[in-house]
Amino acid sequence: MNRQFLLAKRPKGLVESSTLELVERPVPEPGDGQVVVRNLLLSLDPTNRVWMNEADSYLPAVPIGAVMRGIAAGRVVASRAKGLATGDLVTGLLGWCDYAAVDAAQVNLVPVGVPLSAALSVFGHIGLTAYFGLLDVGRAKPGETVLVSGAAGATGSLVGQIAKLQGCRVVGTAGGPAKCAWLREDLGFDAAIDYRAAHLHEAVAAACPDGVDVFFDNVGGDILEVALQHLALRGRVVLCGAISQYNAVSPKGPAGYLHLIAKRGRMEGFIVLDYIPRAAEAISALVPWVQQGKLRYKIDVVDGLENAPEALNRLFDGRHDGKLLVRVAKDEAAC
Amino acid sequence: MNRQFLLAKRPKGLVESSTLELVERPVPEPGDGQVVVRNLLLSLDPTNRVWMNEADSYLPAVPIGAVMRGIAAGRVVASRAKGLATGDLVTGLLGWCDYAAVDAAQVNLVPVGVPLSAALSVFGHIGLTAYFGLLDVGRAKPGETVLVSGAAGATGSLVGQIAKLQGCRVVGTAGGPAKCAWLREDLGFDAAIDYRAAHLHEAVAAACPDGVDVFFDNVGGDILEVALQHLALRGRVVLCGAISQYNAVSPKGPAGYLHLIAKRGRMEGFIVLDYIPRAAEAISALVPWVQQGKLRYKIDVVDGLENAPEALNRLFDGRHDGKLLVRVAKDEAAC
Repeated sequence: MNRQFLLAKRPKGLVESSTLELVERPVPEPGDGQVVVRNLLLSLDPTNRVWMNEADSYLPAVPIGAVMRGIAAGRVVASRAKGLATGDLVTGLLGWCDYAAVDAAQVNLVPVGVPLSAALSVFGHIGLTAYFGLLDVGRAKPGETVLVSGAAGATGSLVGQIAKLQGCRVVGTAGGPAKCAWLREDLGFDAAIDYRAAHLHEAVAAACPDGVDVFFDNVGGDILEVALQHLALRGRVVLCGAISQYNAVSPKGPAGYLHLIAKRGRMEGFIVLDYIPRAAEAISALVPWVQQGKLRYKIDVVDGLENAPEALNRLFDGRHDGKLLVRVAKDEAAC
Repeated sequence: MNRQFLLAKRPKGLVESSTLELVERPVPEPGDGQVVVRNLLLSLDPTNRVWMNEADSYLPAVPIGAVMRGIAAGRVVASRAKGLATGDLVTGLLGWCDYAAVDAAQVNLVPVGVPLSAALSVFGHIGLTAYFGLLDVGRAKPGETVLVSGAAGATGSLVGQIAKLQGCRVVGTAGGPAKCAWLREDLGFDAAIDYRAAHLHEAVAAACPDGVDVFFDNVGGDILEVALQHLALRGRVVLCGAISQYNAVSPKGPAGYLHLIAKRGRMEGFIVLDYIPRAAEAISALVPWVQQGKLRYKIDVVDGLENAPEALNRLFDGRHDGKLLVRVAKDEAAC
């Protein structure tokens, strides 16, 4: 059977038990040019929550009654597409389900030797987000100060490490002393700010005495406000996400946006999908960094598709440690 | 005697009678390399209000007890500087006073034949702001939709006309039917929105059916919020000012900034001072446009330096019509 999570209603705030409905459907057959993929690992990302809203974002809202949209990795179990064979490992927008029938053009082959967890994190959408967000949108340069919010998260931790590899001074915010210690001691951040303990304004002032040249924002809310206040001349705010606002009934905007005038600053949003055509550029940098131990990533695997909705909420209160993945099925490729 | 307005205390909200103190001092003597300028026309700009705040902006806050900072035009009455002679007409940060002693490098000679009112508006900081803000920061291209807030103001009215000259579709917001009619009928705007009468969200949707490619913002607040909601893919928000927020005790930030992510949008601030080295580039475009009647500007002259503080407040409630200037002294050059 094919378990599928359908979006049953649009959540207000966190996902609840009534938000998604788990149904059982027959395993699909591939249409012409399609493959059927057995999902092995499902990626949980803050953007999943955004897709549940009624308003379209950079992708259309998930319709009520449709299979929940999600990035996943799995194994081809049936193919009517050229170039893809049974047994191939692929990633793509496969959805919150056991089996997905998709057009071959919608999936990417995972190279032999790349763990599926890496294909869904450092070598996948997360790695591309960090790489292009920091370097292409943020244009971080050696000697500059880079502030990263959600720095212990999947994207933030890569952003900070890539910034260090570029010769930047790197400051991260994270929730709790353990995550802050990991940033400083294991990942080499110059400073880490526990946003739960610190007075953010003073902590950022102390950690970024010359101001913030690039603020890579995953969080929004208070830290965005403070970062704008400390923006250096011609500073750049890279808008990657705003996890503090995704469950808010009344999202908050940064009054400090006026500092963009005084500092000739720039605030810019981006979507990693736009960088897919340039993926090779990032991968050719990311692979040797990982192989040489210069770029580290953590994964946090939750067992069982049925636990995906509850696990998604962990992204919003920090009860996860690294890239959050759901193991949909046991397979040697997804251990 | 030399009347000077000193900043007596920092205003909360609008300027009050106690904000500035009018004192009489001796007419200064020029130091070595200096000129003494008899102010003829004083430019009132929203940024004057920002400079009165305690916090530094792109320029340091005006200290309490100092002569109020302001752009003005006047005639050199004494010179100990090479290249400047008695009788020359100049512009610069001369301040709210009758006479100013300044270094020669701080003033710009007004070319013969250029009215001082034009030197303080279309051919001065206002013209450069409109030209570089729209074309350099906003990168407006033919066929794009440009939305301008404060469109009947000194800067906004030039922005809209320059955008039309670039082949853009141009929509402006202004206060009241008379100003809107002026934008549409005299300046050739494609649409004008009376922000006092219209439901902004619906009015912008109707006037910008393909979304807003460039939003040139002089106002902030509600119109910024709405413009972000209607941003086109890769839209640009040019932050020129936020006149709705300068007197606010708690300035408001745009919750809609998240649309910058979905739309891969950019919000960028700028300061016209940075473009002084490129002034000739703008002037060589602006002069023929004005001469050919393609670019029109209005001035609104208030008589008497003593009226400057009250007149400044008119910028914030729209009780002015065109570039607001104060006639400090009668002179054939400043009629």
